[in-house]
Amino acid sequence: MNKLSSIQRAYIAGFLDADGSIYVKLTKNITYKYQYQVAPYIVFYQSQQSKKSLQEIQKMTGVGYIRKRNDGIEEYIIGDINSIREFLRVVSKFLIYKENQAKLMLEILNLKEKVKSSLDFLALCRLIDQFQQLNYSKKRIILAETVEITLKEKGFLTP
Amino acid sequence: MNKLSSIQRAYIAGFLDADGSIYVKLTKNITYKYQYQVAPYIVFYQSQQSKKSLQEIQKMTGVGYIRKRNDGIEEYIIGDINSIREFLRVVSKFLIYKENQAKLMLEILNLKEKVKSSLDFLALCRLIDQFQQLNYSKKRIILAETVEITLKEKGFLTP
Repeated sequence: MNKLSSIQRAYIAGFLDADGSIYVKLTKNITYKYQYQVAPYIVFYQSQQSKKSLQEIQKMTGVGYIRKRNDGIEEYIIGDINSIREFLRVVSKFLIYKENQAKLMLEILNLKEKVKSSLDFLALCRLIDQFQQLNYSKKRIILAETVEITLKEKGFLTP
Repeated sequence: MNKLSSIQRAYIAGFLDADGSIYVKLTKNITYKYQYQVAPYIVFYQSQQSKKSLQEIQKMTGVGYIRKRNDGIEEYIIGDINSIREFLRVVSKFLIYKENQAKLMLEILNLKEKVKSSLDFLALCRLIDQFQQLNYSKKRIILAETVEITLKEKGFLTP
């Protein structure tokens, strides 16, 4: 993404501010040590008719993939940590409206690398909770509170 | 808008490509000579929670106004011809996905100034029809065909 000009970076930032989302999701997954998977996402949304614009952005960044949701909405998803870091490195400076989400995402990715205990993991989940306020999320999601209960049940934390 | 940097122009273009609309609407209005009003629009849409981002863009451009629709969606509307011309002059170069809509809009505004007869007006309406394809509009709108019928009824065109 180093080849992207400031003009292109600003364009992508405007696009993301208008119709994108930056968030981290906790998903129950018992194959993971602490029973939950931390899944970071940067997503751009468009109607099927405007799919072309998502392809243009993907062509510019060279990362992520496009998928069609069941409701017909097209999503351009950047979901792997290295690509997210790289994307935010070049674009976040130009964000106006989602600047705080970008900062929180980077904080979370940094903290995630340092998790060494169940308490660390819980602190990470609490940080993820902060996306709720920033994104006005109304969907049912898994919060740190729920993770804490599981960690106690599984004996990772003393009840 | 001359003060806007290329970065700002590209940002706004990205925002408009993602979540905006460029179109011209025909509205029945019998106080107008040819019975229809030609109303050009550039509109940015956001949910109520993201209203702030529309305010940011309005602050940058210094034109247009923000209104809340009955369904709660916030719209930032640029509706006067001079502002639209000025806006497209600074932003259209950076549009990727809505480039054709911008070109068609300028063609229409130019032709509109030159209307001297009902036949000219009808040609203008046919140009406006082209937005249908570009915008995948599904809403019921007034097309040149309808205008032609009215113009014949009113004796502007020989049936």
